[in-house]
Amino acid sequence: MAKIVTFGEIMLRLQPEGYLRLLQANKLQATFAGAEANVAVSLANFGEDALFVTKLPDNPIGQAAANSLRMFGVNTDEIIRGGERLGIFFLEKGASQRPSLVIYDRNYSSIQKADKNDFNWAKIFEDANWFHFTGITPALSDSLAEICLDACKEAKKRNIYISCDLNYRNKLWSREKACEVMSRLCKYVDLCVANEEDAADVFGIASDGSDVNSGKLCEEGYKEVAKKLFDKFGFKYTAISLRTSINANNNKWAGLLYDGSNYFLSRRYDINIVDRVGGGDSFSAGLIYSLLNNYEPKDAIEFAVAASCLKHSIEGDFNHTTVDEVLALIKKGGAGRVKR
Amino acid sequence: MAKIVTFGEIMLRLQPEGYLRLLQANKLQATFAGAEANVAVSLANFGEDALFVTKLPDNPIGQAAANSLRMFGVNTDEIIRGGERLGIFFLEKGASQRPSLVIYDRNYSSIQKADKNDFNWAKIFEDANWFHFTGITPALSDSLAEICLDACKEAKKRNIYISCDLNYRNKLWSREKACEVMSRLCKYVDLCVANEEDAADVFGIASDGSDVNSGKLCEEGYKEVAKKLFDKFGFKYTAISLRTSINANNNKWAGLLYDGSNYFLSRRYDINIVDRVGGGDSFSAGLIYSLLNNYEPKDAIEFAVAASCLKHSIEGDFNHTTVDEVLALIKKGGAGRVKR
Amino acid sequence: MAKIVTFGEIMLRLQPEGYLRLLQANKLQATFAGAEANVAVSLANFGEDALFVTKLPDNPIGQAAANSLRMFGVNTDEIIRGGERLGIFFLEKGASQRPSLVIYDRNYSSIQKADKNDFNWAKIFEDANWFHFTGITPALSDSLAEICLDACKEAKKRNIYISCDLNYRNKLWSREKACEVMSRLCKYVDLCVANEEDAADVFGIASDGSDVNSGKLCEEGYKEVAKKLFDKFGFKYTAISLRTSINANNNKWAGLLYDGSNYFLSRRYDINIVDRVGGGDSFSAGLIYSLLNNYEPKDAIEFAVAASCLKHSIEGDFNHTTVDEVLALIKKGGAGRVKR
Amino acid sequence: MAKIVTFGEIMLRLQPEGYLRLLQANKLQATFAGAEANVAVSLANFGEDALFVTKLPDNPIGQAAANSLRMFGVNTDEIIRGGERLGIFFLEKGASQRPSLVIYDRNYSSIQKADKNDFNWAKIFEDANWFHFTGITPALSDSLAEICLDACKEAKKRNIYISCDLNYRNKLWSREKACEVMSRLCKYVDLCVANEEDAADVFGIASDGSDVNSGKLCEEGYKEVAKKLFDKFGFKYTAISLRTSINANNNKWAGLLYDGSNYFLSRRYDINIVDRVGGGDSFSAGLIYSLLNNYEPKDAIEFAVAASCLKHSIEGDFNHTTVDEVLALIKKGGAGRVKR
Amino acid sequence: MAKIVTFGEIMLRLQPEGYLRLLQANKLQATFAGAEANVAVSLANFGEDALFVTKLPDNPIGQAAANSLRMFGVNTDEIIRGGERLGIFFLEKGASQRPSLVIYDRNYSSIQKADKNDFNWAKIFEDANWFHFTGITPALSDSLAEICLDACKEAKKRNIYISCDLNYRNKLWSREKACEVMSRLCKYVDLCVANEEDAADVFGIASDGSDVNSGKLCEEGYKEVAKKLFDKFGFKYTAISLRTSINANNNKWAGLLYDGSNYFLSRRYDINIVDRVGGGDSFSAGLIYSLLNNYEPKDAIEFAVAASCLKHSIEGDFNHTTVDEVLALIKKGGAGRVKR
Amino acid sequence: MAKIVTFGEIMLRLQPEGYLRLLQANKLQATFAGAEANVAVSLANFGEDALFVTKLPDNPIGQAAANSLRMFGVNTDEIIRGGERLGIFFLEKGASQRPSLVIYDRNYSSIQKADKNDFNWAKIFEDANWFHFTGITPALSDSLAEICLDACKEAKKRNIYISCDLNYRNKLWSREKACEVMSRLCKYVDLCVANEEDAADVFGIASDGSDVNSGKLCEEGYKEVAKKLFDKFGFKYTAISLRTSINANNNKWAGLLYDGSNYFLSRRYDINIVDRVGGGDSFSAGLIYSLLNNYEPKDAIEFAVAASCLKHSIEGDFNHTTVDEVLALIKKGGAGRVKR
Repeated sequence: MAKIVTFGEIMLRLQPEGYLRLLQANKLQATFAGAEANVAVSLANFGEDALFVTKLPDNPIGQAAANSLRMFGVNTDEIIRGGERLGIFFLEKGASQRPSLVIYDRNYSSIQKADKNDFNWAKIFEDANWFHFTGITPALSDSLAEICLDACKEAKKRNIYISCDLNYRNKLWSREKACEVMSRLCKYVDLCVANEEDAADVFGIASDGSDVNSGKLCEEGYKEVAKKLFDKFGFKYTAISLRTSINANNNKWAGLLYDGSNYFLSRRYDINIVDRVGGGDSFSAGLIYSLLNNYEPKDAIEFAVAASCLKHSIEGDFNHTTVDEVLALIKKGGAGRVKR
Repeated sequence: MAKIVTFGEIMLRLQPEGYLRLLQANKLQATFAGAEANVAVSLANFGEDALFVTKLPDNPIGQAAANSLRMFGVNTDEIIRGGERLGIFFLEKGASQRPSLVIYDRNYSSIQKADKNDFNWAKIFEDANWFHFTGITPALSDSLAEICLDACKEAKKRNIYISCDLNYRNKLWSREKACEVMSRLCKYVDLCVANEEDAADVFGIASDGSDVNSGKLCEEGYKEVAKKLFDKFGFKYTAISLRTSINANNNKWAGLLYDGSNYFLSRRYDINIVDRVGGGDSFSAGLIYSLLNNYEPKDAIEFAVAASCLKHSIEGDFNHTTVDEVLALIKKGGAGRVKR
Repeated sequence: MAKIVTFGEIMLRLQPEGYLRLLQANKLQATFAGAEANVAVSLANFGEDALFVTKLPDNPIGQAAANSLRMFGVNTDEIIRGGERLGIFFLEKGASQRPSLVIYDRNYSSIQKADKNDFNWAKIFEDANWFHFTGITPALSDSLAEICLDACKEAKKRNIYISCDLNYRNKLWSREKACEVMSRLCKYVDLCVANEEDAADVFGIASDGSDVNSGKLCEEGYKEVAKKLFDKFGFKYTAISLRTSINANNNKWAGLLYDGSNYFLSRRYDINIVDRVGGGDSFSAGLIYSLLNNYEPKDAIEFAVAASCLKHSIEGDFNHTTVDEVLALIKKGGAGRVKR
Repeated sequence: MAKIVTFGEIMLRLQPEGYLRLLQANKLQATFAGAEANVAVSLANFGEDALFVTKLPDNPIGQAAANSLRMFGVNTDEIIRGGERLGIFFLEKGASQRPSLVIYDRNYSSIQKADKNDFNWAKIFEDANWFHFTGITPALSDSLAEICLDACKEAKKRNIYISCDLNYRNKLWSREKACEVMSRLCKYVDLCVANEEDAADVFGIASDGSDVNSGKLCEEGYKEVAKKLFDKFGFKYTAISLRTSINANNNKWAGLLYDGSNYFLSRRYDINIVDRVGGGDSFSAGLIYSLLNNYEPKDAIEFAVAASCLKHSIEGDFNHTTVDEVLALIKKGGAGRVKR
Repeated sequence: MAKIVTFGEIMLRLQPEGYLRLLQANKLQATFAGAEANVAVSLANFGEDALFVTKLPDNPIGQAAANSLRMFGVNTDEIIRGGERLGIFFLEKGASQRPSLVIYDRNYSSIQKADKNDFNWAKIFEDANWFHFTGITPALSDSLAEICLDACKEAKKRNIYISCDLNYRNKLWSREKACEVMSRLCKYVDLCVANEEDAADVFGIASDGSDVNSGKLCEEGYKEVAKKLFDKFGFKYTAISLRTSINANNNKWAGLLYDGSNYFLSRRYDINIVDRVGGGDSFSAGLIYSLLNNYEPKDAIEFAVAASCLKHSIEGDFNHTTVDEVLALIKKGGAGRVKR
Repeated sequence: MAKIVTFGEIMLRLQPEGYLRLLQANKLQATFAGAEANVAVSLANFGEDALFVTKLPDNPIGQAAANSLRMFGVNTDEIIRGGERLGIFFLEKGASQRPSLVIYDRNYSSIQKADKNDFNWAKIFEDANWFHFTGITPALSDSLAEICLDACKEAKKRNIYISCDLNYRNKLWSREKACEVMSRLCKYVDLCVANEEDAADVFGIASDGSDVNSGKLCEEGYKEVAKKLFDKFGFKYTAISLRTSINANNNKWAGLLYDGSNYFLSRRYDINIVDRVGGGDSFSAGLIYSLLNNYEPKDAIEFAVAASCLKHSIEGDFNHTTVDEVLALIKKGGAGRVKR
């Protein structure tokens, strides 16, 4: 059992039931979610020792966020308490031609306002094997960008493998700011994960022939992106998740892993979506698990894509999928016969 | 902001949760719905000044119906109170090969029993720009047929644009009666809206080569229908919604607008249905909005079809869609990427 | 109205709401289900006199199971009370590539522990026209295998038509045991029903060219299976349900009936699944109804397949479908237009 | 097992969840209820053979009403199908000083419009031991008053014991009309049941010193009422339920039985109300059960009051209480220790 | 119909179902609430023309807040759009000895950050008869304290009656700050409303012999408080709500009105609480309604107390009670008999 | 932070919503519960290091049980996996005179069938300060009685404080068997907890003048019981919880602690019950916490009674109450004012 540290924000996710719009709802499903927390839960569900680091308000809402993690076996011992509030986002699930809608109310959160001295990285990284964060964390505030840098340096010092999902959010920072900060952080990163838009948004690296809004996507073009990313920062791996949006109910889903010499393109799945939020995070978790467990690159990317394919069939951001279930999908396919 | 008056019945809509059949349900979702009320809500959601006219019982059920409208900004000041009951319909949502089932319990409603003197059309139409009703209203009773005629005459006197959705309901009246009454009313109508069956049911005007039950539909044939309708009554526009039912979960949806010289055929959408009831009404509302706002005919029909395409992704009869959302679908397509 | 006796287990079926996984649920939908009980309910919904025989614990849980049957008109007068508990199964509904998951907790149930002397078959079969059971009942215990044999003998003595759905469950018994016991029982059977795997599992009779897990299925090969089954036991009919699993949301569904000389292959339906559990039982019920009512073989198999097609659109194991609804699907197809 | 026939209306009861007002609700709990149907269900729960007679619309709503009865073992074989609609009532549960509110939408129901020839009382009363109806049934229409008279005559001819709960509803008829019709029917009645207001409302028979609205009630005064009722019609028994309303959550509840010579006053219960609708009907059912089973008058009234006391702790109109539970309350009191 | 303007914050109120604690909930009931919004809704429910002034974020959450008001007839035309977020509070309903718990997450709301220039008081107060605010509004920020002063001055200039509920919230400001700001505002106030603690918290005015936490309360002592308040600012009326907390389920509730010469003490109600949040606001609304409609002081306080007594039986902050219902409670008492 | 080990069964608790009876429910709330698990959760909520030991089936139901514990911080590292099933109990919440009803389906559970060798007590008790079990655990099977003895011996060897709640369940064993086994175990016990019936049931030790079913209880008599228990086994403390059942909604609740020389009788609380199941376990947890933290006996019993008083206001078996909340109740009383 490897120890993986993830660092970032966890938010209260409030969502109307079924396909109701926010304007129609008088009940909201309350779960907790955040890119790095999602990765931690998925890794805990895979049987790994996942430690999630954040700062939570010292009230029942903060406690509920922590409980949502330790319920699934995530280690919450290094979570700091204090600050004013937990970030919130409202999620309206899309259907057919109506896209899902996310409304963020995450400003002024405890983690956004966290201070450099809140986190003792030397202690946090004791016995750790892996450190994961995404581009959302440094985007939250200048202080957090600094803290991420601290963490990366401490991790590197200890020879801890570092992965980063670019995860660009244009409501949090500009492309320019993102490029500047992420460039500084990416120097420490071993595995860089991106979706089909991130590389363009953050580093201006684009593939030709793809048009995200139209749902068209040229897989070959992404090899070029993977290579450019790789070459720019000298990663050990770049991984790209390839989503083709047909509509809000149907997506195609695949992934690409590049190790500097070979491109490993996974099988592509036709997905009937239950909940696609957290899909990218489950892809990262799948990669971390499979690389940590010494899968061959081609098996690693298959594992990551199959794991995140299953995530799309699960409500909430968290990927409640076991290693056995992922392997069964890879081996037997997804014909969906009842398991009695 | 234009003032649009719509006139008709609003009913309590009772529906089991999800795909439960009525025989399985012990909870019913209670919303309110009615062809002309649906149009009013959609127009209010588009930012227009929609005034809905009806008669409601003077009890909490009637009040709840009115509240459901003013919640979304519909003007309910001209709603009359009195009579015995609110009409009800039970709706069982279909799935796959099982069709949706509607059971009406709408007889003896306050509006069905309304009297000519209940409505002061001169006052209602003050400053109004548009009047909309559907074939359901005059079908409710002879008295309502008379009242519709009164309203049309008063509207015409004031140069108010009149639209009518034929909306044939065979449980309410015979084809013969419908033909007779609607022929009288259609003389006053500027925009005539019909679905793929109405023209045949009401006026015996059919296209060749279409078979509604088999789900096949020949778009070209409908041009012929649009023209015949247009020629018969001298409308300014005829608009036809074109639904191809694959099964209860999947429909194709498009529309046709004819202005006496040109046929404007919209894009066709493949829809994963959340709730298709009220689809036609959202099409009418889209037309009214776009024509009132001086869209070109080809843009008007695209707007109406995109608006009603989105309606199919929304629970309940009301189309909770904004102008921006409709325009985004037209411009960017319906690939359903999450809006963050 | 014919009297049909079915015999077997009814269990409490506990299921998270929607697509939630068991680990996410804090509410469980509680219905009741069991292969032979499902057949009884479907036949009662078709207007037949269905009598279900089982043993239930003498407590409110057992009473609730009985109530769930008599609510739909099943005769529960011959249900025995006693024993320790009602069997339970947990059902997690699959989606997309994630398969549905069934966890059985059915050991030590009242019916599993039932005694030969609990059932007076002479009394039970008074005026009966048909007896139906499935391979699950004799699999529950040696005692139940004996009781099934008693029942078959008594039924045969009275010239009651006997149908059996092989319904192999590998968690209940080995293939060897199943083969031995079912071979003894099948001698009495007139109509043998099997799905695409049962014949192989129980009697080692397989078709070439089919691979259940991959979702591929060669219909022609099943003719061979139907014939081998028929020839082995001298049935009057063998019927095979043909499911092609695309994924957990989409299946193709058809059926084959063989009368010793002709093969009757039904139309094939593309199904958007609401709930596929109980699909096979609704197929058996459709066959029993149509054969009892003297349908021609080709009409009988169409009826059975259409009935069970509709079942897939209905929540729970029970098929709440009327004869009129089945016939409407056969005649008008499943385009799913709203029935107003 | 005695056969008891009850005759009247069953309605769809629609109620917001918990203490929500109708104006706040978008879900309604759907159960079925009606004075005589409630009595039938309670008797079936006591193990008797209860047959409920009514007329239901021939649609899924009517079928659901019938299912709600046979689920609990009520015989529905003599229910007639036809007519236009099922009566509905909306129920808003009161709390503290806010009273429960009932809105009736029961006009034009199938049973209200039923015809004399719909019911074959000779067949219905075959082997029956008891006939029960309430003052609501003849109040529904003149035709139903006639039908009640028919039923009473046929019952009397067959020496069937007849009970009637006066159950005055001022929204259904005037006091004058009630007095006239009920006087005619009461001649046939053996057991007359009334609550603390009915005798005054229907026959102008009042006790001194009670004020229903203030919640004060003089038990002694009701002896006088019981006697006057008894003397007026020559009943075998008069029974009066004595409710003291503290507020919508707390009531006191007792009963009085008079046999022409002695007054039997029951224990009085302090009740925390879960649902008080149907309380009177459960009192009638308790009396019918206990008198049919030859309880002494003092035991009969204790049984009836204890049974209806328990009803107040049960959601819905139906009294889901067994004989053992009633006897346990009488013997051990209602201290409410957990039964493990 | 008088026009009443109220000004303040409306928040999203998130509450677990029933008595669940926040740590146990995965669904939250979403309603909207705020002291002055509550008053506006109650007045609209009384049939008055209530205009609520605030600033809301320009997103679906802000729109939902506005919809929740106009649904009940509150005029929302003067609500400003802009700013960052809607304030939120989490409410955990207490029971027995466990108190209700409120967690505020209201900082940085659009209204808190509103600017003096956002509001055109001259336009807002056109034709207005009354202006109401509470001590919460000026407590939100210095800017809002200024805006309140502006509003008071403009209202006074126009001879609009001004009421203020002291409504001290210790999480929003210190007693010193409250005293200073409220002293400045109270100069303009005609009717001052306070609960049993506010006068002490804000102005250090206390009665002897009361201990809020122990649930004891000396009504006579409050006369002294009412007088001191009155004398300090020269109000036209001071009104005090008198709550005696037995536990979280049971409270006693009364009120006192002082006009400078006489004390009017209302009836006291024993309340079984459904939801006590918003109780004080419904008291203010009752006073405003009754004084606007020229009730005698003794009738005014009875109306206000009865109205707010009923509020305690209603879920949510809003008092969904009509004038007729309040008067019925005053006249007939709260014995809670079913209204059929 | 002290380490407390508790050992026993955790079950799936299935309960209809609100006050519905099992026969009315089609949804069941699913939580997890068990006497010793309840104690562990309460202690974890108090901030202690609680380790719960049991055996769970290796399936999602067993995993969900473990998750329900670690969600609240209970250490589940020593839980064994294997066996057949998780025990279940159905709980129907009583109201007014209708008692709560528990139906056990706990036979054949993994823990009941556990083997002596499943548990390594030396390892489990490393660094432990306290061991707690109840009379339910040895009652499950002879094997478990043996295992309890093993555990007690190992704990005693390590000078770990041992507490035992007699917790007699007559459905699990006879009084004779209980007396025999518990006598053997009690020799090792330091703190013996009992409710008002246990001492009589297990050891035939009764107080005079109490009648549990009538709800009467003589506190003085229990001093005699406490003393007899104490003297029989030489405990360090005996503690008795004193419940007076008024009805299913209202109980009085107090406690008595005896240290061999003095009797410490707590304050008595009048409780409006939300959920009384688990009340006794929260009393034990309160005692363990307060004694571990060196409270004086009189403060310890006040803490235990206040903690368990609060439990009665919380849904589910688990006591979600913090030390601060318990102390606030002791200090400020339970007047239930809203905590803002």
